[in-house]
Amino acid sequence: MIIVLKPNVSEQQIEEFSRYFGEHSIRVNKWVGDQSTVLGLLGDTSAVDVDFIQQQEFVERVQRVSKPYKKGSREFHPTDTVVDLGHGCCIGGDNFSVIAGPCSVESEEQITLLARDVKQAGATFLRGGAFKPRTSPYAFQGMRAEGLELLRHARKETGLPIVTEIMSAAHLILFEDVDVIQVGARNMQNFELLKELGKLDKPILLKRGLSNTIEEWLMSAEYIMAGGNEKVILCERGIRTFETMTRNTLDLAAIPLLKELTHLPVVVDPSHATGKSSLVAPMCAAALAAGADGLIIEVHNDPPRAMCDGAQSLTPAQFTEVMEKLKALAPAFDKTLNIFK
Amino acid sequence: MIIVLKPNVSEQQIEEFSRYFGEHSIRVNKWVGDQSTVLGLLGDTSAVDVDFIQQQEFVERVQRVSKPYKKGSREFHPTDTVVDLGHGCCIGGDNFSVIAGPCSVESEEQITLLARDVKQAGATFLRGGAFKPRTSPYAFQGMRAEGLELLRHARKETGLPIVTEIMSAAHLILFEDVDVIQVGARNMQNFELLKELGKLDKPILLKRGLSNTIEEWLMSAEYIMAGGNEKVILCERGIRTFETMTRNTLDLAAIPLLKELTHLPVVVDPSHATGKSSLVAPMCAAALAAGADGLIIEVHNDPPRAMCDGAQSLTPAQFTEVMEKLKALAPAFDKTLNIFK
Amino acid sequence: MIIVLKPNVSEQQIEEFSRYFGEHSIRVNKWVGDQSTVLGLLGDTSAVDVDFIQQQEFVERVQRVSKPYKKGSREFHPTDTVVDLGHGCCIGGDNFSVIAGPCSVESEEQITLLARDVKQAGATFLRGGAFKPRTSPYAFQGMRAEGLELLRHARKETGLPIVTEIMSAAHLILFEDVDVIQVGARNMQNFELLKELGKLDKPILLKRGLSNTIEEWLMSAEYIMAGGNEKVILCERGIRTFETMTRNTLDLAAIPLLKELTHLPVVVDPSHATGKSSLVAPMCAAALAAGADGLIIEVHNDPPRAMCDGAQSLTPAQFTEVMEKLKALAPAFDKTLNIFK
Amino acid sequence: MIIVLKPNVSEQQIEEFSRYFGEHSIRVNKWVGDQSTVLGLLGDTSAVDVDFIQQQEFVERVQRVSKPYKKGSREFHPTDTVVDLGHGCCIGGDNFSVIAGPCSVESEEQITLLARDVKQAGATFLRGGAFKPRTSPYAFQGMRAEGLELLRHARKETGLPIVTEIMSAAHLILFEDVDVIQVGARNMQNFELLKELGKLDKPILLKRGLSNTIEEWLMSAEYIMAGGNEKVILCERGIRTFETMTRNTLDLAAIPLLKELTHLPVVVDPSHATGKSSLVAPMCAAALAAGADGLIIEVHNDPPRAMCDGAQSLTPAQFTEVMEKLKALAPAFDKTLNIFK
Repeated sequence: MIIVLKPNVSEQQIEEFSRYFGEHSIRVNKWVGDQSTVLGLLGDTSAVDVDFIQQQEFVERVQRVSKPYKKGSREFHPTDTVVDLGHGCCIGGDNFSVIAGPCSVESEEQITLLARDVKQAGATFLRGGAFKPRTSPYAFQGMRAEGLELLRHARKETGLPIVTEIMSAAHLILFEDVDVIQVGARNMQNFELLKELGKLDKPILLKRGLSNTIEEWLMSAEYIMAGGNEKVILCERGIRTFETMTRNTLDLAAIPLLKELTHLPVVVDPSHATGKSSLVAPMCAAALAAGADGLIIEVHNDPPRAMCDGAQSLTPAQFTEVMEKLKALAPAFDKTLNIFK
Repeated sequence: MIIVLKPNVSEQQIEEFSRYFGEHSIRVNKWVGDQSTVLGLLGDTSAVDVDFIQQQEFVERVQRVSKPYKKGSREFHPTDTVVDLGHGCCIGGDNFSVIAGPCSVESEEQITLLARDVKQAGATFLRGGAFKPRTSPYAFQGMRAEGLELLRHARKETGLPIVTEIMSAAHLILFEDVDVIQVGARNMQNFELLKELGKLDKPILLKRGLSNTIEEWLMSAEYIMAGGNEKVILCERGIRTFETMTRNTLDLAAIPLLKELTHLPVVVDPSHATGKSSLVAPMCAAALAAGADGLIIEVHNDPPRAMCDGAQSLTPAQFTEVMEKLKALAPAFDKTLNIFK
Repeated sequence: MIIVLKPNVSEQQIEEFSRYFGEHSIRVNKWVGDQSTVLGLLGDTSAVDVDFIQQQEFVERVQRVSKPYKKGSREFHPTDTVVDLGHGCCIGGDNFSVIAGPCSVESEEQITLLARDVKQAGATFLRGGAFKPRTSPYAFQGMRAEGLELLRHARKETGLPIVTEIMSAAHLILFEDVDVIQVGARNMQNFELLKELGKLDKPILLKRGLSNTIEEWLMSAEYIMAGGNEKVILCERGIRTFETMTRNTLDLAAIPLLKELTHLPVVVDPSHATGKSSLVAPMCAAALAAGADGLIIEVHNDPPRAMCDGAQSLTPAQFTEVMEKLKALAPAFDKTLNIFK
Repeated sequence: MIIVLKPNVSEQQIEEFSRYFGEHSIRVNKWVGDQSTVLGLLGDTSAVDVDFIQQQEFVERVQRVSKPYKKGSREFHPTDTVVDLGHGCCIGGDNFSVIAGPCSVESEEQITLLARDVKQAGATFLRGGAFKPRTSPYAFQGMRAEGLELLRHARKETGLPIVTEIMSAAHLILFEDVDVIQVGARNMQNFELLKELGKLDKPILLKRGLSNTIEEWLMSAEYIMAGGNEKVILCERGIRTFETMTRNTLDLAAIPLLKELTHLPVVVDPSHATGKSSLVAPMCAAALAAGADGLIIEVHNDPPRAMCDGAQSLTPAQFTEVMEKLKALAPAFDKTLNIFK
């Protein structure tokens, strides 16, 4: 960590400040320039609070040199993390994995049929929302516990592991046999929830917050990993910008950047990112080309009748077409489309 | 609600669509233009899902005419809501109320002394964080339950009602005698938490999310009010933009706009909004001038030693100066600085 | 155009308002609902000022039904526009075309060598900045007129058409034999410049502004086309968001969306969008996958010594590798890599 | 300037790099830490290109210590710049100055009457657009040269200096006797225009770009000042964010921040910032409270009939009321409302 001090800092202030770090087993190197003095902190500075340093009146600026995340950093863990749920259903490494299903679970028939459809087309994970975060308290809030029950039924019928969103740590008891727990964009910084998920031995699909930086996202992954659960899958789902023609702005350049920074797998959600079904297929291909490890795609048997997000859902036929295309393209990007065994 | 249909819509589609609304007691008026057909929905459309309509392939565009929030709307509730906690401590109406205290509760001595200082200077509410949302899992997370205990102690000493942040519905048991529960920016759309708070009979200070629109914010207030708890205080604390010189961008124009849209009181947090103590005093005055009902200000006895957010904290002496200024200015804006009795 | 009126509008106001439109050959249909009255304008409303309507005190909201751009709209011009400069150098349709070269022209040797290198690798257009928009007045401002001279020389040597940025209509005299004139992001709404470019018979590569919406961008293209010059090539180069790890946020979903809205060709600039050379190759592939008609890529013989933007430049060797990859991938996306003949 | 090098940098690379700076009269100090080596540049680094440094493969990160703007910096010019146009019409220092008038000049009668009205109410500068930047080529583009003529006429009638926007350096000949030339948000980084304005001896009102940082804005001011024209007035007019309920987001915290960074006067445009006339009065008061040196306000005799921006214009009566309020408030903020003598 590099600390630039203001020109008027006194020798005594520097000494006191250095002593403070010494008490925390951090060594301080001082470098005196023409216009300013710079301190360099040596040792493990991950617990040092940048804000604390910034608030000293004699500090001009602080800059981290080492990354504030450790467990998620590729620096300390160079090989790709692969999350494996058996039957060939894994995410990370050379796999290109597709999670598909409806935005909301609506009925036993709907979810079971869709599960079969998406499996048939080549998906290896079934998604479906039971607890739905909705902007309006008057909108459909999901089937909740009953929805989870129906997902379990669909899994029994198809074997596909299920991925579904949690909205409160108080619901954890209901998620015990869920295969992958999804944390939605709005809960990316629900730190109390992240801490609880860190205690589990279960993959967590962590969506990027609506307007969170890549570093904040990796720090949220770090919350889960610091608790002992290292099975984190990152999911880019678009960020909020001034553009309103698409629901969000899909940040695909984040994919190769994340591949440099972290060993965690990264999947892309083109459905929520664009909000328009006609843009989903090109964005699926673009995500693969950008280096993603997989996709999470909304598929609905009857999009116009969907209880939510129908405008961005593919029909099973459209989904099958996308999967054919991805299967053909994957090898060009050193990936193999994940196959259920 | 106005629905513009695509030019190629069929008569049958329109009929089926109209029948659908008929089943929900909503009448549909049709208007046929040169290039397109427009439907107007009559009746209570607050439960109609805009997304559902948008996802019909024959729909070009949807536009709400009536507001999606009801309980928070000034239309149906023209007089200002005033939250009253006794001893003259109220927020809303002609009152200009100041909530002050440290970012984090750090010790009994610290919080008690600060409570006395801010009361002396004219604050009528004591703030202090016990549960702290921090980007890094390795940073100080607050004194948690013990911090709440110390806040209670400071209240006993001074009489000031306490305002403190909740991070999980699971902690509600600890917040029973907290006077005002704060929902932080990162939890503005933690809907499960909002629902729980809606069951209480206790004021909720609802901060605006980092990148949430004013409408989404009012919808989150609606979550609380729909549950029966109408004591919601809105708090503007800056939004995330491309500008990095200030911590966030304080959206003061939101204040007079909210005064048109809602009857709920609105306070401003200039400390988090700017992140710089030197900007707090001018932004306090600007918030008053913009029509705010009060402020929430970070005050710390020794900002450089603060365990968090020291860079944006005022010293008690600086705070006293701000209060003198506000007291003198308030009448020019038809407000009276709230006084503890 | 649909105009929702406020509940308290008077009959007389509606009549006067309708008469106003009548004078502009626009018919008005009135539809009276429970809570509000809606007017529908029929006829050519492209010259109707939305702001003008919004400012009537009895108007609640206005919504365009037809698009405000005409010449750029695919509705009125369904087939793709192809810009052709001879020797097989064209952009649009089935072509996938690559424009490559250094950020700045630095010397005769540099630009000539790079022109040969990028031609050898398969680029069909040479880019190079002569006039450089720099944030600081103290930074290198480009070789200006001399730089254009060197570009002409490189064209003579290789045959590649040249693409270079104009910063002022006053420089037009120097751009007479430039093949494609580029309008940079900062000048996307320099309307006086756009009007001048509209008088030419020469392709204009119009970059999207730093924080301009897709609709504003199409309206800027419309400025050029309204003047008579229909050879506009759009260039997505990233938008400004809160994320700072990449220079900008590349909005790839804009590509398939633009393909629906307009017949104009769209290219992508992954170099400026990301600001990091390591992200350029994956973003090139992703742009192709998203449906782009081509790329504009920065290539420099010695990136660390580049006078600007070296951090995002590829070496000729890296560029050659990217081109090999694109050549192999293009057919999967129904494109053929453009070849110089 | 502090340069953090990557761990794998070689001694030779450091030596060569240091030699490069030596050639530019910049001394380099090296500091070797545990994990990384840091270089500190001493001397005048304002011409050093941060990008150039960043693009060296062995550079991890660069950080400026000194500010990249010199002429605009308060560091080197501690006293406030006051722009004085005679008759008591000045901006800066203790003055609080109001520029008022219509968005567009529409006719001799309109501009003359409005000039009288705003002078009567206490404005000391007349604004009025002759050249109008409009998103659509089909919208009213202003009266252009004729509009300037009418402004001159209004000045002759009232004595008020005129403030009007330039859109191209090619129009400079028409602006010779304009008192204050305005550069609009869309031209804030039209560097060729800024350079031309730098050659004049005339105040320039420089609006902040739609999505430009405070530092970029100060660098644009620097373009004008570097040319020799130090009479720059900054104008905050709102930035583009995700919020759409107001036209832009007025960044009032930028005012006290600018007061720390620069000696240049700063005015606020609440009309464009909010886009809603009902928000103008509170934002005028808030701007004064935040420390602004003045305001630029749109006033129209008949807002609903205004040719542009009527929705945000005050009537002369509303404007008079705002002025009365500001006159009463100014002394509380150590300002005196500017009076025409």
